[in-house]
Amino acid sequence: MFTLRIVLLLVAGLFAFSKGLYAEEIATKADVNSIIANLNIVWTLVAAILVFWMQAGFAMVESGFARSKNTVNILMKNLMDFCIGTLVFYAIGFGLMFGSSKYGIIGSDLFFMKGIVGAENGAEWGWTFVIFQTVFAATSATIVSGAMAERTKFKAYLVYCVFICLFIYPIFGKWAWGSLFNSEAAGWLQKLPTGSFVDFAGSTVVHSIGGWLALAGALLVGPRIGKYGPDGTPRAIPGHNITIAALGVFILWMGWFGFNPGSTTIGNGEIGRVAMITNLSGAVAAISAMATAWILFKKPDASMALNGALAGLVGITAGCYTVTPVGALIIGLVSGVIVVLSVIFIDKVLKIDDPVGAISVHGVCGLWGTLACGLFNAEKVIGIKEVSTGLFYGGGFNQLISQLIGAGTAFVWSFGIGLALFKIIDLTIGLRVTREEELRGLDIDEHGMEAYHGFQIFTNQ
Amino acid sequence: MFTLRIVLLLVAGLFAFSKGLYAEEIATKADVNSIIANLNIVWTLVAAILVFWMQAGFAMVESGFARSKNTVNILMKNLMDFCIGTLVFYAIGFGLMFGSSKYGIIGSDLFFMKGIVGAENGAEWGWTFVIFQTVFAATSATIVSGAMAERTKFKAYLVYCVFICLFIYPIFGKWAWGSLFNSEAAGWLQKLPTGSFVDFAGSTVVHSIGGWLALAGALLVGPRIGKYGPDGTPRAIPGHNITIAALGVFILWMGWFGFNPGSTTIGNGEIGRVAMITNLSGAVAAISAMATAWILFKKPDASMALNGALAGLVGITAGCYTVTPVGALIIGLVSGVIVVLSVIFIDKVLKIDDPVGAISVHGVCGLWGTLACGLFNAEKVIGIKEVSTGLFYGGGFNQLISQLIGAGTAFVWSFGIGLALFKIIDLTIGLRVTREEELRGLDIDEHGMEAYHGFQIFTNQ
Amino acid sequence: MFTLRIVLLLVAGLFAFSKGLYAEEIATKADVNSIIANLNIVWTLVAAILVFWMQAGFAMVESGFARSKNTVNILMKNLMDFCIGTLVFYAIGFGLMFGSSKYGIIGSDLFFMKGIVGAENGAEWGWTFVIFQTVFAATSATIVSGAMAERTKFKAYLVYCVFICLFIYPIFGKWAWGSLFNSEAAGWLQKLPTGSFVDFAGSTVVHSIGGWLALAGALLVGPRIGKYGPDGTPRAIPGHNITIAALGVFILWMGWFGFNPGSTTIGNGEIGRVAMITNLSGAVAAISAMATAWILFKKPDASMALNGALAGLVGITAGCYTVTPVGALIIGLVSGVIVVLSVIFIDKVLKIDDPVGAISVHGVCGLWGTLACGLFNAEKVIGIKEVSTGLFYGGGFNQLISQLIGAGTAFVWSFGIGLALFKIIDLTIGLRVTREEELRGLDIDEHGMEAYHGFQIFTNQ
Repeated sequence: MFTLRIVLLLVAGLFAFSKGLYAEEIATKADVNSIIANLNIVWTLVAAILVFWMQAGFAMVESGFARSKNTVNILMKNLMDFCIGTLVFYAIGFGLMFGSSKYGIIGSDLFFMKGIVGAENGAEWGWTFVIFQTVFAATSATIVSGAMAERTKFKAYLVYCVFICLFIYPIFGKWAWGSLFNSEAAGWLQKLPTGSFVDFAGSTVVHSIGGWLALAGALLVGPRIGKYGPDGTPRAIPGHNITIAALGVFILWMGWFGFNPGSTTIGNGEIGRVAMITNLSGAVAAISAMATAWILFKKPDASMALNGALAGLVGITAGCYTVTPVGALIIGLVSGVIVVLSVIFIDKVLKIDDPVGAISVHGVCGLWGTLACGLFNAEKVIGIKEVSTGLFYGGGFNQLISQLIGAGTAFVWSFGIGLALFKIIDLTIGLRVTREEELRGLDIDEHGMEAYHGFQIFTNQ
Repeated sequence: MFTLRIVLLLVAGLFAFSKGLYAEEIATKADVNSIIANLNIVWTLVAAILVFWMQAGFAMVESGFARSKNTVNILMKNLMDFCIGTLVFYAIGFGLMFGSSKYGIIGSDLFFMKGIVGAENGAEWGWTFVIFQTVFAATSATIVSGAMAERTKFKAYLVYCVFICLFIYPIFGKWAWGSLFNSEAAGWLQKLPTGSFVDFAGSTVVHSIGGWLALAGALLVGPRIGKYGPDGTPRAIPGHNITIAALGVFILWMGWFGFNPGSTTIGNGEIGRVAMITNLSGAVAAISAMATAWILFKKPDASMALNGALAGLVGITAGCYTVTPVGALIIGLVSGVIVVLSVIFIDKVLKIDDPVGAISVHGVCGLWGTLACGLFNAEKVIGIKEVSTGLFYGGGFNQLISQLIGAGTAFVWSFGIGLALFKIIDLTIGLRVTREEELRGLDIDEHGMEAYHGFQIFTNQ
Repeated sequence: MFTLRIVLLLVAGLFAFSKGLYAEEIATKADVNSIIANLNIVWTLVAAILVFWMQAGFAMVESGFARSKNTVNILMKNLMDFCIGTLVFYAIGFGLMFGSSKYGIIGSDLFFMKGIVGAENGAEWGWTFVIFQTVFAATSATIVSGAMAERTKFKAYLVYCVFICLFIYPIFGKWAWGSLFNSEAAGWLQKLPTGSFVDFAGSTVVHSIGGWLALAGALLVGPRIGKYGPDGTPRAIPGHNITIAALGVFILWMGWFGFNPGSTTIGNGEIGRVAMITNLSGAVAAISAMATAWILFKKPDASMALNGALAGLVGITAGCYTVTPVGALIIGLVSGVIVVLSVIFIDKVLKIDDPVGAISVHGVCGLWGTLACGLFNAEKVIGIKEVSTGLFYGGGFNQLISQLIGAGTAFVWSFGIGLALFKIIDLTIGLRVTREEELRGLDIDEHGMEAYHGFQIFTNQ
């Protein structure tokens, strides 16, 4: 036996030796793991850059769909929410969201990147993870600016941005995504008895939270002057630059390829799957929104088609990792129909004035996409797990219940806090500009400048 | 001898042991290959995202070069061609292009991603490859929208988009690129007796196919009202937004760094080479087009310079992997001159109205770039093969003959099918809007909205 | 002892054997190094693409902040500087900057990519490095076009672009960054007795060089007609499209994630750190610039906030690799204040007309950021070196002295050569358009077209 082993070893040793391999030339698992970590970092940073780019997309969509006299104001809001978000999320938000947490309610360390700055090895990942999460955090605030556009005070906007990125977004984020940086710090929605709430890239965490905050804000700030006639009939107030709005949608679509596939934070074949699934949903939703508008209005309305694309992208954000192409097509198809009906319902029935349709796109379609995970999750079919959790794929009702709990909690949390926050702002610094300012446009009074100097523009719109 | 081996083995073994390496710490080729596959996936997905972004570039170039009254229409077309392309290419086109094929004529499986969804291991690559090819497929349709802008019915556009992405593009794609996913499924142009037709990233497969379809479409739809005087003199119809058109060119240039280097689908040093070669051609072509226009018109025309950049990028797309910097400079230089002459020739001699110059940029320069491979391919100089195939680098006429066969086939296929397709559309749902609609602009009648609400715009242009 | 070794070897060998590993399955360090090289290439090329994209950002910022009648001209300048830069940097500039050099003054080989084209192995990196450096080189020229906008001859612009990319930028680049491609070719600023001049991504090399050239150009070409009243009072000349200017700032910010993190040219965790540091500075600077303007002008001016973001990004460019988050926040905070004060000082005191604020953003904040390295460099805290070199982190005055030498040299070199170059151009082909051309706008006279055909635009602005 001993002799046999010597012989076996000899065989193996000779192979190595015949290749001229010495120990210093042999690669170790540590070498390999280091490269894998670096590849993941490169991919995640690229994704973060794409998500940052979505800020430009929101700025373009919102300014394009608003009137020219409020353009500077909207651009400034979109710039400032990112800047403010960067600072407060770095200082406090990140810690609340990803820090240690006993009961999965609120994080209690990692503030000011403590433990990441200067740390060795693993800390390298920390920096990339923080920038990736920073660009996500700023998105919720941006969504709100669209729904409250054209009549909200700039100062009020700056204040509520602080609160959104400081704790409204991070605390819900903790509940749903708390374990992403430190697996011990899972949030309570990740530990439901019916199974973890699933929101892969943030249909709820980012989009619905933003959408329900927008709902609270639009409700409290009230409709724009002239939006509803004396008898309550809504009047269309067309955007001033559809080219820029369309560019914004293309930018957002591009950014979504960072938002969804980037949320794996791992550079492997799954990013291609998530990208393809995301793209299918966006594409079919643009078409179904256009078709719905075509049927209802007899014309293929561009605003609806553009919002339809966004609706499909929001809708697939929760399930982009877990559904099949067919699932993606259904989620997208429904998103495109829902967004048109929701825009009409909010405008004509609820009579809440949302200039860019943000509540419908982000709130409503975010909700739909989140619930859809309970129906369409098909982990087994996709090949990532032993079983599928979606109702339609044999997973029973458990996932759907988790999704309802998560999405319901998001609504209560963000709409509730939002009402309180906007009310307090209204009572202190004031939420809305004066009637004169609104009529003249916010650009002149709030910022002392106009967006299109020299162009002759009709003012009584 | 036996003793010697024991001693040698001892030496090797001691090296390993002194390093403290155990089997579970030794990295295998399988580890390495897995990382290489993932790195290729990351690079290819990034490239796919950049190519997606070109859709925004086309949208901006085409709307910028058209009149403001048709802007919404062009934007919608550019959005919808991508959405439609995504769906039909996923369902059918991809299978026709990359599925198994006995004679290299048409693929017969992989429809609806069958065999990729849920497959293990290698399937991971499949998802990334499908999204990469999807963004390519939508490009051909986009090219056509530019040449037929400002007078084509929206419905007609939607219909021909379906056909382009369903089979016109995929079938020619099979012939030239059939082997890219499955090496057994090569197309007949890859098996020519004179050597494989070379079109690395699609001067012909994407651009010329799009360009010749555009030629067929522009021919059948006829010139815009007022484009040619009673005596046939062409009248310039200036674009409404050169800022947006220039932005579109920058977007396209950026996207081309995904289009060309991404076509290696491999993350190694060759992507830097392809990027540099691509950039040289685009740069010199912008200058040569500007110079040509300066000589002919006495002014450095911006439209020509912008189209010149695109011409150089289209021109180098076929040979970006195989030519030297000097080859790239010559290809670009000629592309810049050709595009200006071609625009003038098509406008003044053929009297075909192409509002954005798409036929010249994509069709003509795509043809030139494809043939140029037969002249400038310098694989040996670049260091990728034992021999060079270009005539000027000692490769004889064989490659040039293959290029002529491939480019000629592309023309016959796409122009022929295009004529039939547009004629059928014309006879059924109608290709062109009414005179009244065209004069008023397509935005109001086709979509019920205008692009720049509030701006005072002269209407009798 | 001999027996013991046999036993030990046996143990190790059995581990390997029990895993079924044979020599041909064992990965080598060479395999690993090849992947690392490829990962670095992928990251660096992605970064290069992002830096290329900054050209679009500059084009949008500069045209948005100028008047509509000069838009085509600015767009053309921004396109052409990149095209010209690509060619002359490929041919000569790259060699001067990175070629072999005895005394660290000027490179003497690598012209026309000699030694890179066709070279094996390491040469692969060469291509990626050249494209990365090419997109950097074109940036300096672009900066100048902003400060000289609205009155400089197009021909004159083309000529000075050649000189900037041919030798003004490359020669200073050699002094500061000479060793980046070939470690033997270090520049003299890298070999100072007080320690190497630190300018990680180019606060000085790219931005200040561009800014001081812009200062020379703006000084010699003189203010725009109507900029200063008879008594020297400056008059604000508002930009024509703040939407486009804001888009430009978002584009530049995105591109900076390639500019700064890409300058590591290594795909590892440091890119996340550099991205986060860069982002913190840009964010706080936008806020501090807005606050400064708010205090001074009583309104949160959008131009100042937008320029503030750029100022913070320029400011952090030198130290993005070496400072802490707190350092970044201070550098950004100061940048935002400085840029506003500098714009006012240059406008009202120096009475130099800089339509877009390029001298303040790139020259002044580039200088501040460069000096700040001498104060805030905290290598030890960040974890990249044994000691910190910044004054505030215990490094003494040496680094600050090196920074003063480097930044001072940059001023003397670029402002001096700039004065000479622009004077010579003025005396030969002429620097400035005629009064009539300037009043009518450069678009019509220089390019025979207008940017916004059909729009009614007030002309007497």
